[in-house]
Amino acid sequence: MDRLAETLSRIEPLDPSLSDALQKRLDNKTKPLGSLGRLEEFARRYGTIRKTLEPTLAKKVIYTFAADHGVVEEGVSAFPKEVTRQMVLNFIDGGAGVNVLARHVGAEVRVVDIGVDYYFGLVPTLITRKVRRGTDNFTRGPAMGRDEAIEAILVGIGCADEAADEGVDILGTGEMGIGNTTPSSAIIAVLSGLSPREVTHRGTGIDDAALLRKIDAITRGIEINRPDPSDPIDVLAKVGGLEIAGIAGLCLGAAARRIPVVVDGFISTAGALIATELSPTVKEYLFAAHRSVEIGHQVMLDRMGLAPILDLSLRLGEGTGAALAMGLIEAGVRVLNEMATFEQAGVSEGL
Amino acid sequence: MDRLAETLSRIEPLDPSLSDALQKRLDNKTKPLGSLGRLEEFARRYGTIRKTLEPTLAKKVIYTFAADHGVVEEGVSAFPKEVTRQMVLNFIDGGAGVNVLARHVGAEVRVVDIGVDYYFGLVPTLITRKVRRGTDNFTRGPAMGRDEAIEAILVGIGCADEAADEGVDILGTGEMGIGNTTPSSAIIAVLSGLSPREVTHRGTGIDDAALLRKIDAITRGIEINRPDPSDPIDVLAKVGGLEIAGIAGLCLGAAARRIPVVVDGFISTAGALIATELSPTVKEYLFAAHRSVEIGHQVMLDRMGLAPILDLSLRLGEGTGAALAMGLIEAGVRVLNEMATFEQAGVSEGL
Repeated sequence: MDRLAETLSRIEPLDPSLSDALQKRLDNKTKPLGSLGRLEEFARRYGTIRKTLEPTLAKKVIYTFAADHGVVEEGVSAFPKEVTRQMVLNFIDGGAGVNVLARHVGAEVRVVDIGVDYYFGLVPTLITRKVRRGTDNFTRGPAMGRDEAIEAILVGIGCADEAADEGVDILGTGEMGIGNTTPSSAIIAVLSGLSPREVTHRGTGIDDAALLRKIDAITRGIEINRPDPSDPIDVLAKVGGLEIAGIAGLCLGAAARRIPVVVDGFISTAGALIATELSPTVKEYLFAAHRSVEIGHQVMLDRMGLAPILDLSLRLGEGTGAALAMGLIEAGVRVLNEMATFEQAGVSEGL
Repeated sequence: MDRLAETLSRIEPLDPSLSDALQKRLDNKTKPLGSLGRLEEFARRYGTIRKTLEPTLAKKVIYTFAADHGVVEEGVSAFPKEVTRQMVLNFIDGGAGVNVLARHVGAEVRVVDIGVDYYFGLVPTLITRKVRRGTDNFTRGPAMGRDEAIEAILVGIGCADEAADEGVDILGTGEMGIGNTTPSSAIIAVLSGLSPREVTHRGTGIDDAALLRKIDAITRGIEINRPDPSDPIDVLAKVGGLEIAGIAGLCLGAAARRIPVVVDGFISTAGALIATELSPTVKEYLFAAHRSVEIGHQVMLDRMGLAPILDLSLRLGEGTGAALAMGLIEAGVRVLNEMATFEQAGVSEGL
């Protein structure tokens, strides 16, 4: 059995009886039943994923996958392509948004070059797993080969495996890739059957003319490549991206190793969506960090049945929303572990 | 001039030019313009309140005011009245929800007995500022005297002053008082002119019969007391509560000393609303922590023009939501202080 099939075969549904037992622990805490709302949901699901009534959440890691996109030639982004590599170095130096927010919640950021169109030379701490130097322009043919898409998924699975071996408790996804809202919109258009116009937005902040070019590029990319919506890897290869594939792999690998994944915004959710199309059970291991400003994001979340944790009009990506949401999931786990019970505190229960 | 009038006279509107200058600093950071959404709003407003282009946010304190309510005689709560004092001791021991969440974000919890119907004796770390031992049952007459309402507001102002003198950077509000969603609903019913039914919900989790009793108690309380909606202190005295008054005072005192206040959920917002009715400028100093499950909460937030930071179906109070939201405001301030600029990172700006 190949590595991808083997990973898929190891993903198990969560045990509802463990979830009930965790809720019972929460119900003994000194508070009205259910009054910590979604924090209780986070704690319950986190414990169920980790297969324990007494889960701890200490080691938090965000993987930020970086790659370039041939489709930027079509004028779909507000930023030039070299910003992808410039931002990779900014991540390594600790100066980007995701670095600041990860520090704030006590998470580590790991940057993976999975397909940047640039040779970095020796950059300590950059994880080099370049599958190829960016995708091809999908308006003229497939973004990448099917074998390359699978290879990029395996990079993500490898990251999850490494993290699991180190004892990481929770993973977050992030990405950098100028132009990558374009393949993300293309993916959800193909999978949902909605028109590109209905799922395409302004990315880093493009004007009306660029938005029309972007919708047109996606429309042409789907027409020329005819990706098969029932074959997620075909969709990923033909109109996707390398960092999106890496994120899909991270979700699959993490679910196989029973590590929850906090999925950042629009592009990360495109990756998570490829994973859940390959194995619907994966969604039980995912937390949607936030509701992005991108209009296609809600369509993705609805398809996956995930409710976002935050709604702060974020549209930066990188893993910034994942960092913030991780802090809230950890808050839920701390409630489970640290709050006194009615008995411990000598507090009367409800009438 | 008396202390309340003097505090009100010191509350200044924020300077929009400072807000613009802070946004300019944010716009130089390595991210698309505005892409950190509300985190940028938090940083901008925090800096404007603190009157500096380089704000720091280190010392965070949540004041949790505790008091009892005569109206619990009417069967409006799912918990017996002694839970107020039991929970005060739980706060002091560090076992309650607010303790856990405040620790999580690095905030200190200070518990103020502003009107618990119990003599605690010597409890180190409990701040004793008891105005009276609980309110009277407002279905039979005013909850308290006007002088007592003002005294309780001054307790809150005093807390804000102490915090300001110590160099606290941000304050949160919290409360404990079995029955206190009832006066909170009464306050917003009077101020908004809506019927009690439209702004009254299940508090700690009452059943349908208790909900009807609660709506009836509020209706009778308003009828017998006829609070004057144009006189916020009259409303507070007649159908309010001592902890609500303390929170109103904390908001006023903090605004006078240019300290932002993170207002927790429904009951805290009732207190903040009394403050903004006394001085509309106060709202510029407030952050609404979250959208409570209580149906009257949105009516309050709309009246104050505040958009909640979180929406996690919380309904515990104590300051739990304020703690979580403080962490997000701090995240925004860290973005302002720690992110690299385009120039520092050598990243190209938008096309």
